[in-house]
Amino acid sequence: MNRIPFAEVQAALAGALQKLGFGAERAETCARLFAETTRDGVYTHGVNRFSRFVATIRNGRVDPSAEPEVVCRLGALERWDGHQGAGNLNALAAMERAIALGRGHGVGCVALGNTNHWMRGGTYGWQAAEAGMIGVCWTNTMPNLPPWGGAERVIGNNPLIIGVPRKSGPVVLDMAMSQFSYGALESYRKRGEMLPVDGGFDSEGNLTRDPGAIEKSWRPLPAGYWKGSGLAVVLDMIAAMMTQGKATYQIPAEALFETAISQMFLALNPAAFGEAEEADRIADGIVASLHACAPAKHGGKVRYPGEQTLKIREENMRLGLPVEPEVWKEILAL
Amino acid sequence: MNRIPFAEVQAALAGALQKLGFGAERAETCARLFAETTRDGVYTHGVNRFSRFVATIRNGRVDPSAEPEVVCRLGALERWDGHQGAGNLNALAAMERAIALGRGHGVGCVALGNTNHWMRGGTYGWQAAEAGMIGVCWTNTMPNLPPWGGAERVIGNNPLIIGVPRKSGPVVLDMAMSQFSYGALESYRKRGEMLPVDGGFDSEGNLTRDPGAIEKSWRPLPAGYWKGSGLAVVLDMIAAMMTQGKATYQIPAEALFETAISQMFLALNPAAFGEAEEADRIADGIVASLHACAPAKHGGKVRYPGEQTLKIREENMRLGLPVEPEVWKEILAL
Repeated sequence: MNRIPFAEVQAALAGALQKLGFGAERAETCARLFAETTRDGVYTHGVNRFSRFVATIRNGRVDPSAEPEVVCRLGALERWDGHQGAGNLNALAAMERAIALGRGHGVGCVALGNTNHWMRGGTYGWQAAEAGMIGVCWTNTMPNLPPWGGAERVIGNNPLIIGVPRKSGPVVLDMAMSQFSYGALESYRKRGEMLPVDGGFDSEGNLTRDPGAIEKSWRPLPAGYWKGSGLAVVLDMIAAMMTQGKATYQIPAEALFETAISQMFLALNPAAFGEAEEADRIADGIVASLHACAPAKHGGKVRYPGEQTLKIREENMRLGLPVEPEVWKEILAL
Repeated sequence: MNRIPFAEVQAALAGALQKLGFGAERAETCARLFAETTRDGVYTHGVNRFSRFVATIRNGRVDPSAEPEVVCRLGALERWDGHQGAGNLNALAAMERAIALGRGHGVGCVALGNTNHWMRGGTYGWQAAEAGMIGVCWTNTMPNLPPWGGAERVIGNNPLIIGVPRKSGPVVLDMAMSQFSYGALESYRKRGEMLPVDGGFDSEGNLTRDPGAIEKSWRPLPAGYWKGSGLAVVLDMIAAMMTQGKATYQIPAEALFETAISQMFLALNPAAFGEAEEADRIADGIVASLHACAPAKHGGKVRYPGEQTLKIREENMRLGLPVEPEVWKEILAL
């Protein structure tokens, strides 16, 4: 594993993006988001995903020069058209606008249609939290998950992100509606491990912890069975209705061709009535109550969502971002 | 099982509430909400729960004369003080106001602190959907669930409700963050049945489908394990921060003494830009895609959240509300 300084990674990605048609500033920002994702330990959606992102530019699904645009406005709500531009840049702009709306109106919302995969969803939760705002956002996806009671993949795993500001460390939940991603199933299988809990059905329709059996059946479980399934459905409905954009069932079901997806960005202002410090104390109190909880296993610890991130971030900034030699070679060759 | 006409049930409950100090109109509305909950088939939170509600009036936790009041306003956001009044009346007023804010601003939010148990959370999702709005609301609760990795109940099961309007039948998700409620565990045990999926840990810390073993360990599972646990934490944080009210860990952990809880009500306007019919078609399309999904089991069917409600509602209005003779006797004696 190489350890490469953050700035060097960002510069390499930005250089590649400029060659692909991104303007200088947009290339810098887009590259920063990929590098920050690796910096924060979300290796599946950072530098390791860059070549897949490049492939969607080359196959025309992502338009490198497209910028998102507001198309309708009413008070604290805006609808934006992503013009099938880079998903992470579009999402960043949408959350930035939701934050501005939330500051002025207490709550703000941007419905972003016709956009592309936003890469790491947690990015926009951190964005809101670091701006002192509560951010809630979600995206629909191509059909990749069977609904509860169904045998075919007709719903999306529709990640939901909630970021809560807190001076001593934002709380950021980043959860897809499947219990395990296909990427996670693959990792467990390659390590020869069983899943810690049931992760899907085998081909006979029995619940199983065997990752390979689930990959074969294409029937991973929604998180919480019927609960995650239902939540995925309503999140898709809201995103498609508010954007007047595509619903999951209308999105091409191949990773490199998934496009024109629908996303929602909400921002709530915990300091709307001037009590940022009190809100911070409230968040601290909840964190303290979790940390005081007796662990289920000797030596264990109850953690809040996102608790590990700042530690990983510090380490990766100090030592350099961990990048596989093969991945790095590929990026330098772009 | 008695079958009693809706109007008769409502009148009996309203009469009891008036004797307990509710004004006539508030008694009618509060009684209607209980009767509607039974009408819609949510028997645990309707007429069957009325005597427990009465007990919280008698022990002083619920103030029958208290009305909720707005305390801060900024644009599309308001904070309300529930003054520890009847939880269902407070929640109804809060969602009504969120709907009005959402109509004017595209999105509206009411943070309601210092309130009481709202009974059936789905009520407020239906309220928004029947008004043509998307409603999102949640409540914190007393500590009743161990967080992922923890052995003690320090988080709440914090129900989350999302209601989506649709002419041919609203889509309403009503999900607590535990996979099974204590009430559900009790029902399975009394019927001598195992749970359909793992529902918690036994006293040795093993995952189990045995409802009695989970009741004994007090360790039911969060829905989706770490996912529902994390979602419960952030929902609690948002509710406590936005209301400047109590967080789960500060709420008395006994059903009859749970009080001063914190709730959030959001309303989004799918017709903000004049496209109510298009939004309806989008929702219909998603429902159709679910109904077209091949079932996992022969003769099965994939359903959308809340799909059964209108059918149950119709049946209970036609035949009368099903009420246990004992429960009815008790109500008439109030």
